[in-house]
Amino acid sequence: MRPSPERRLVILTEGQFQVHDAKTALGVMRYGRDRVVCLLDSGMVGRRVADLVGDDPRFDVPAVATLEAALALGVDALLIGIAPTGGKLPPDWRGIILAALGAGLDVLSGLHTFIADDPEFAAAASSSGATIVDYRRPPDRMETSIGRVHGAGKHVILTVGTDCAIGKMSVALELRQAALDEGLRGVFVPTGQTGMMIEGWGVAVDRLVADFVQGTCEWLIEEAEMLGDWILVEGQGSLDHPAYSSVTLGLIHGTTPEAMVMVHKPGLDEHEFTHLPDRSFPIHPLPEFIRLHEQVAGLVAPSRVVAVALNTSLYPDEAAARRVIAETAELTGLPTDDPFRFGGARLFGAIRAALEPPSVRR
Amino acid sequence: MRPSPERRLVILTEGQFQVHDAKTALGVMRYGRDRVVCLLDSGMVGRRVADLVGDDPRFDVPAVATLEAALALGVDALLIGIAPTGGKLPPDWRGIILAALGAGLDVLSGLHTFIADDPEFAAAASSSGATIVDYRRPPDRMETSIGRVHGAGKHVILTVGTDCAIGKMSVALELRQAALDEGLRGVFVPTGQTGMMIEGWGVAVDRLVADFVQGTCEWLIEEAEMLGDWILVEGQGSLDHPAYSSVTLGLIHGTTPEAMVMVHKPGLDEHEFTHLPDRSFPIHPLPEFIRLHEQVAGLVAPSRVVAVALNTSLYPDEAAARRVIAETAELTGLPTDDPFRFGGARLFGAIRAALEPPSVRR
Repeated sequence: MRPSPERRLVILTEGQFQVHDAKTALGVMRYGRDRVVCLLDSGMVGRRVADLVGDDPRFDVPAVATLEAALALGVDALLIGIAPTGGKLPPDWRGIILAALGAGLDVLSGLHTFIADDPEFAAAASSSGATIVDYRRPPDRMETSIGRVHGAGKHVILTVGTDCAIGKMSVALELRQAALDEGLRGVFVPTGQTGMMIEGWGVAVDRLVADFVQGTCEWLIEEAEMLGDWILVEGQGSLDHPAYSSVTLGLIHGTTPEAMVMVHKPGLDEHEFTHLPDRSFPIHPLPEFIRLHEQVAGLVAPSRVVAVALNTSLYPDEAAARRVIAETAELTGLPTDDPFRFGGARLFGAIRAALEPPSVRR
Repeated sequence: MRPSPERRLVILTEGQFQVHDAKTALGVMRYGRDRVVCLLDSGMVGRRVADLVGDDPRFDVPAVATLEAALALGVDALLIGIAPTGGKLPPDWRGIILAALGAGLDVLSGLHTFIADDPEFAAAASSSGATIVDYRRPPDRMETSIGRVHGAGKHVILTVGTDCAIGKMSVALELRQAALDEGLRGVFVPTGQTGMMIEGWGVAVDRLVADFVQGTCEWLIEEAEMLGDWILVEGQGSLDHPAYSSVTLGLIHGTTPEAMVMVHKPGLDEHEFTHLPDRSFPIHPLPEFIRLHEQVAGLVAPSRVVAVALNTSLYPDEAAARRVIAETAELTGLPTDDPFRFGGARLFGAIRAALEPPSVRR
């Protein structure tokens, strides 16, 4: 999947914006290359996204109640802005999508249910000339891993985490930005639909046939190595997540990262973003969890956790956030920061120092 | 997928019988409910399978060179008897499959490439009335894990291993037989195409969409609990396999086994049944590998490795095999045997003793 020209987006979150954290919508607003014109969410009318998630010009996005109102603002694509567990289309969104396609809007979706495979949607797109992009559609490639070794001078860094939906993608994006700011050839490797919407390429790893997860991750790194040297790979799930751990391990063993960055959300005691009605699952203590990642990764290729990236959103007070960062650094013995909140420069500098002896720097 | 009536099979291995170990063909001959009439493999003509793999009435199967010769022996289905890495159809088998369908034979396949989705094959089946069974086709089910807890009195036991293709399926089948022999309600849960061909139900886990591996394994156990109490789950791959580890972990975290049986092939130093031209990968030492399985499984639900099942095929001398079994028991502190060679009764007895206090036995 290759990048597209800039679009003017309406993001559909109807009725779900506050329920589901809307991580897709927020990720696209914060990091995407497309212009987000408005949110289609009748429960949000009268408010701007910034009112809910904090003052940032990128979130200065109004909400509209109807597709007609969005069209009046001059949009050219509808992006489906939630990533529900299991990735199914909420039934009451059918009408909105049909109307959007009928009006000639492209529809961009990261759902497991492919929009383009639905005959009614396909017919609507065909008669209006609109394009449907299903980001989760897997590449037409059925190859298992061959044990590929990374190219010389390439640094592959994977974000892993203590839960899903705590910021592994954002951390990878902030670290890539820091690499670029230092004049290095930084690359972000999208492995989920939101990352793909932001970057315009990649593979939604959780949609692959299980047998080909590692083989496809290996190939993604081969592609990324053609784009640069400091390769920041978006992690998925967590190694202890009852539903998603196998995808996490597939990324670890498929990308064989030289280094991992552990993403953690202090203050969270249990796995949160789950669909696990039958039991609760604790977040594991960092030092043991870090050691276990190194052991498990090392079954296939040596790898170290070289830094901890905290999501300090549960500590709105900045002094408290800086305190928990210092405590975590002390606990783990690793460079620690919140790159999403305080920028990625400091943490990337520490990672670079760990991976590249100062003598080889240009 | 539900059991079918007994069939009379010709197994297609043309040119591959000796190259690929033919684990599908041998598994179906040894454990299947269907009658294996002949092998279609021109390189094997004049020999019986027993000549290559040892004297056992179940392997008293002749080879024929042509489909016509197989038809003359009164077969009613063609089973594709190899499981190549990546699961693609060898191009020169197209003609044989087309001819078989044309002659009204059902075609049974465990390949990733679905036979029934090929228009030419589908047309041939349709005009002759033959049925195509693609065992690897995933169930029409898109559900992630919900953290389901096992029913009371159910014992879920998963085979894990130090490599793929060393006998995890056979060990589970032998232990299930031992449970039945003790008058217990034993169940075998097939998780790969060969197990499904043998048992007539199950799911080829490596073909699932990655996001649904754990959710589907969880559901398989729910199904198995309706069939019995001692649930022997066929494992896949190995936790340290560069290509298949994510499927292995999906089974561990999806079935949340009370106990695991570690399958190991002494004498093997490197991963063997791989497609890894770029590097070699060592087999890991048992004690550490066992501990790591308990740690990794325990991230989601407590589990113990309660026994070691050895594949002693590299020790043809029986005394040597018994010696390596004793040494492994000493090394690991666990009950150890080769249930494939010496029967599953002793090892199952030890597993039962570990899981069920004698006081609760009926």
